Amino acid sequence: MLARLLDAIAPPDAAAGARARGRLDELTKPPGSLGRLEEIVVRLASVRGQAPTVNDPVIFTFAADHGVAAEGVSAYPQSVTAQMVENFLRGGAAINVLAREVEARLVVADFGVATALGARAGLVDRRQGPGTRNMTAGSAMTREEAVAAIEAGAGLALDAIDRGADLVGTGEMGIANTTSASAIASVLLSVRPEAVTGRGTGVDDEALARKTAVIQRAIGVNRPDATDALDVLAKVGGFEIAGLAGVVLAAASRRVPVVLDGFIATAAALVAARLAPAARHAMLASHRSTEPGHALMLEDLGLVPYLDLGMRLGEGTGAALFVHLARAAVSVYRDMATFKSAGIDGPAGGAAT
Amino acid sequence: MLARLLDAIAPPDAAAGARARGRLDELTKPPGSLGRLEEIVVRLASVRGQAPTVNDPVIFTFAADHGVAAEGVSAYPQSVTAQMVENFLRGGAAINVLAREVEARLVVADFGVATALGARAGLVDRRQGPGTRNMTAGSAMTREEAVAAIEAGAGLALDAIDRGADLVGTGEMGIANTTSASAIASVLLSVRPEAVTGRGTGVDDEALARKTAVIQRAIGVNRPDATDALDVLAKVGGFEIAGLAGVVLAAASRRVPVVLDGFIATAAALVAARLAPAARHAMLASHRSTEPGHALMLEDLGLVPYLDLGMRLGEGTGAALFVHLARAAVSVYRDMATFKSAGIDGPAGGAAT
Repeated sequence: MLARLLDAIAPPDAAAGARARGRLDELTKPPGSLGRLEEIVVRLASVRGQAPTVNDPVIFTFAADHGVAAEGVSAYPQSVTAQMVENFLRGGAAINVLAREVEARLVVADFGVATALGARAGLVDRRQGPGTRNMTAGSAMTREEAVAAIEAGAGLALDAIDRGADLVGTGEMGIANTTSASAIASVLLSVRPEAVTGRGTGVDDEALARKTAVIQRAIGVNRPDATDALDVLAKVGGFEIAGLAGVVLAAASRRVPVVLDGFIATAAALVAARLAPAARHAMLASHRSTEPGHALMLEDLGLVPYLDLGMRLGEGTGAALFVHLARAAVSVYRDMATFKSAGIDGPAGGAAT
Repeated sequence: MLARLLDAIAPPDAAAGARARGRLDELTKPPGSLGRLEEIVVRLASVRGQAPTVNDPVIFTFAADHGVAAEGVSAYPQSVTAQMVENFLRGGAAINVLAREVEARLVVADFGVATALGARAGLVDRRQGPGTRNMTAGSAMTREEAVAAIEAGAGLALDAIDRGADLVGTGEMGIANTTSASAIASVLLSVRPEAVTGRGTGVDDEALARKTAVIQRAIGVNRPDATDALDVLAKVGGFEIAGLAGVVLAAASRRVPVVLDGFIATAAALVAARLAPAARHAMLASHRSTEPGHALMLEDLGLVPYLDLGMRLGEGTGAALFVHLARAAVSVYRDMATFKSAGIDGPAGGAAT
């Protein structure tokens, strides 16, 4: 399945993008004056290969635990992962509120929470195990486990797209998963862990130093091959990160724009882009996280985020906020009058009068 | 009336802001992890002096013509001001689309369009004349005209607030009004016109040089007194800019947050802040325009914009986009679960575990 997905990922449709740009320039505003809102329209059109829509946005929030949490790398105990999933199911978390605001469907899936949550209304079971193994003592996953988690995420995205999703967002929950994401970024970007390791949910200086050392140790123990993204993902990744890489690949294979959330979701996207470089064209970066490694990964992906609000929560909250911008952009494209239809004079001879 | 407004403007309610911050820190997310979304909540609470709401946002889009358009400072002919007002009334402009997206009421008022539009459904008549006089040949308005326009704008805002508006946005339309706004910024910020003059709707290099020289000439002819904002507004301002200064003062006097749009709306806010320094506390900067003078004015006002999307359209489009962020912020504040209500463990001893 993974090989089929990778094969199906094609470059963007430049002609559809140019058609969208042509229409934008006929609307009753100076050309380009809506700035990056216009860029969003052109990006969505290029990915879709047709006029852009945001009728059925779906946000995937995948949860899993990480064996490396045992190393004391998070400000919160591991129990919080399962508790936050319960919060998602009751609708009390930030992602619930923000997804409701933009009328996005939210798909909450258990990719491997330490405490099994059982069959629950609103929870999708894609458990790959009771969390990954501690990556400081060996590989977090086997290569087969990593592929299975990617395919599980891709399957959920393909289902949603079959049911009409025309914009897909990525989000996650998992205590210690910034540690895993930093390890992935360090290896795939070939930078030292210090350059891509931040405070996550808010650790102090001492814990930040410990977290950086833990990442260094995990990389030293596992020696992931930077030219083999599956190897990196298996050795220092996580089940939810693999699942989100699958969402990105599935969306790209079906020409559906995929909106990246913050640091961890972008690490998943980086894995996807290493597996299929053309997948980058389907991605939009919703916001810039305060995690120091985020900007470096976005730069590698050639993405400039649309929002810069100092957020660092994850869950898909940045992706949800972005849905409004995308919808506003599409409404401008679809609903504004043209100079011709409104009978408005254009620039006088192209210069000032 | 203006004197009464200025007297009524009070500092923000720090206690209400602190209460909002206290509740934000109880919600199921690491403290501060929603970044500037949390800042919006605290700002709205401080202005209102109570829990923040965004139930009835109203955007004021004021239109007027400028005598200085005769100097060839715009890429578009003066006829476009009236034509765009017609477009507003038919619902085909960007501000119509974006205000509908956020379910904001839009108040379109004629503050002095060159071609009288007559009584029209949806158009508020606050005509102060058929546009300002050409400021390169003398004062654009008399001081009395400037005060009357401020009071007309304030009156509209007070009416809306009486009918329930809890968030007010500012926007404008007027060919050549970036020239007026640049002149205001140059004088009130004590910087050379070059530093605050940009391409507006998109003039070429030659017209940009002419526009800058026109501003220089208008300042030389009128010698506005930088310590007297009413003098500056009358001599180099515009009717719609005066009206928006009135909106800002009225909102501040009634403790209603006022969301600034781009360059021209911010020039109006700068005039308001010079008349009543405490009015600054009621302001939120929606976005950073590409006009070079915008960042300088925002800095003077102590405001950091929430969006930076390369927009330069005006009309209130940035203010409308911001309404979504404000609403998202308020929903987070109002609807998220607390750690206690959700039974979620907090940080382990405040440090990493």
